[in-house]
Amino acid sequence: MSILAVGSVAFDTIKTPFGEVTDIVGGSLTYFALAASFFSDVNLVAVVGEDFGEDQLKIFRGRRIDLKGVAHANGKTFRWGGEYSLNLNSRETLFTELNVFEGFQPDLPESYRQADVVFLGNMHPLLQQSVLDQVKTRRVVGMDSMNLWIETTPTELRNVLGRVDIVKIDDSEVRDLAGVYNLRKAAAAVQGFGPRTLIATRGSHGAMLFTPNGIFSAPAYPLEDEADPTGAGDCFAGGFFGYLAQSQSTDEATLRRAMILGSVMGSFCVEDFGTHRLERLTIDEINARYRALKQLTDFEDL
Amino acid sequence: MSILAVGSVAFDTIKTPFGEVTDIVGGSLTYFALAASFFSDVNLVAVVGEDFGEDQLKIFRGRRIDLKGVAHANGKTFRWGGEYSLNLNSRETLFTELNVFEGFQPDLPESYRQADVVFLGNMHPLLQQSVLDQVKTRRVVGMDSMNLWIETTPTELRNVLGRVDIVKIDDSEVRDLAGVYNLRKAAAAVQGFGPRTLIATRGSHGAMLFTPNGIFSAPAYPLEDEADPTGAGDCFAGGFFGYLAQSQSTDEATLRRAMILGSVMGSFCVEDFGTHRLERLTIDEINARYRALKQLTDFEDL
Repeated sequence: MSILAVGSVAFDTIKTPFGEVTDIVGGSLTYFALAASFFSDVNLVAVVGEDFGEDQLKIFRGRRIDLKGVAHANGKTFRWGGEYSLNLNSRETLFTELNVFEGFQPDLPESYRQADVVFLGNMHPLLQQSVLDQVKTRRVVGMDSMNLWIETTPTELRNVLGRVDIVKIDDSEVRDLAGVYNLRKAAAAVQGFGPRTLIATRGSHGAMLFTPNGIFSAPAYPLEDEADPTGAGDCFAGGFFGYLAQSQSTDEATLRRAMILGSVMGSFCVEDFGTHRLERLTIDEINARYRALKQLTDFEDL
Repeated sequence: MSILAVGSVAFDTIKTPFGEVTDIVGGSLTYFALAASFFSDVNLVAVVGEDFGEDQLKIFRGRRIDLKGVAHANGKTFRWGGEYSLNLNSRETLFTELNVFEGFQPDLPESYRQADVVFLGNMHPLLQQSVLDQVKTRRVVGMDSMNLWIETTPTELRNVLGRVDIVKIDDSEVRDLAGVYNLRKAAAAVQGFGPRTLIATRGSHGAMLFTPNGIFSAPAYPLEDEADPTGAGDCFAGGFFGYLAQSQSTDEATLRRAMILGSVMGSFCVEDFGTHRLERLTIDEINARYRALKQLTDFEDL
C-alpha cells in the first residue's frame, strides 16, 4: 500500500561543528519520503520553484516515490539555514525564506485521494485540514506539528488534532500543547484532543509511544559519529509511517516495531549531512540496526 | 553476601514545586543503603554528629543494614539544602554545612574488611582510596563521583578509577571526565582509565551501561506523579550494587538486570520526598515495576 505525504521541500544551508553544506535538497517532506520509501510507495504533495529541476528531483528517482503531486510554481524554492551548537542539541535558525511555499495550496491528484496512510507534514493547520478535506478514503492519518502552530494557531491546530489518529511531535511540544509538564499527564491530555496514539520524540534520548493500551519507550541508537541532526525527526516519521503502510496493521506490536524503525531511520540520518546517508542506505543496514536496538535493550526476567 | 558502603549521611532540607521538608535524614549513603538493603546485607561506614540519635537511626533499623561502622563524632551532622526548578531537572544548592563530615576519616571495623561488593560513595577521592587500602578482599568495587572532584582533584580521581571495576556517574560527568562530548567515545575513554564497566545515568531519560561486551540502554519508568528527585541516583546505585551482591555474578545478563533494578529503585525514590517512599516500599512493588519496565521496552523482531 502507499502513503500520501504532504509537506515542505526546500534548499537547506546547514552548519554544524563537523562541517557545513549550502543549498542542498532538504525540507521535512524530503527526509520523510526518502525514509518511508524503504518500506512503502510514497505519493508526494509539495511545491517547488523554478530553481528546482531534474538535478534536484533525481534525489527521489529510482525510489518508491511518486512525484505527480509536486507542483512547480513561479519563483524560488523554500530556503532554510541553521547552525547547530557544539553538542548538536540546540540550533539557531539563520534564515527562513518561504518563497513559493508561502502560497502553497495542496492540490491532490485524483489518484492520490483514495489513500491508505496519510501523513500531514509540519505546516499551517489550515493546509493540513485542506489535505484531509480532499482525501476520500484513508486507513490511518498521522501528523507532525511544531511550537509555532501551538502558539499562533491553537484553535486550528486543535481542529486538525480532532481528525487524526497519530501525532508525532517532540516531548517539549507535547508539554506545551497540553500545558502540563509531566510527560505522562501531558500525553494523556493530547490524546484527549483526538489522536489515540501519540509519539513524543526526545532527540538523542529516543522516543515514547502512548497508545490506549500503554506506553512504549524506544531507545535512540548511540552513535559514535554524528554529523548533522537536520531531518532526524522527519526520518523517524518516515520509518514509522512507512512501516505502518507496509504492514497494514496498527496493532500494538506493529506500532512498537514501527517506533524502532523510526529510531533506526533517525539515527542513520544524523550520520551525515542532509540526506547524504539516506541516499546510500540499504535495507540490510536498516535490518542490522533494528537488531542492534534489540540487543541494546534486551534484558531477562528476574 | 554483603556490600560495604561508604559515604555521607546528612540532614537534608529540600524544596520542590510539590512541597518542602526540613532536616530529614538524607545523604547519598542513606539512599544507597535503603535501596541496596532490599537485595543484600549492607555494612555502613559513615560519620554522624551528636544531633543524630536513635530517632534518626531508626530509619535503618529492621533492615539488612549493619551500623557498626557509623562513627558518632562531636559536633553537628552534615547538612544540605536544595531547591528544584519547576521541571525538577535542575536544582540550586541553598547551603552545604559539612560539619562532622569535614573531618571524616573512614575507619573500617575489622569484620567489614573481608568484603564482597565495595561501594565508594561520592566523596573526596583520597577518602575513597583510604577505604580501598583498608579492604583485604573484595569481588567487585564500584564508585560514584561528581563534577567537584573531576575539576578539583583530577589526579586523585584518576588514581581511584584505576582501582575500581564499575563507575556510576551521570552522562554529563562522563563527558567532563573524558573531555569528549560524544557519549560513546567518552565512555570508552573512561573505561580506558580503569573501570571495565561504566554506568551513565541520565535522569528521567534512563541510564546507559557500557561493558567490554557492548552497550545496554535502560529506560526510566515514566512516573505520573513526581515529588522530589533527591537521592534518585543513589537509589539507582543501591539497586544496582545490591543486586550484584545478591546474585554473586557480574556477567552481562546480571549487569543488565541490575540496571533495571537501579532504574526501578530510582523511580520509586522520586515518588515522595526524601526517603519516604523507600521506607514504605515492598519487594512486591519492586518486582511489579521491574515487569512494567520489561513491558515498557518489549518489541518483537521484524
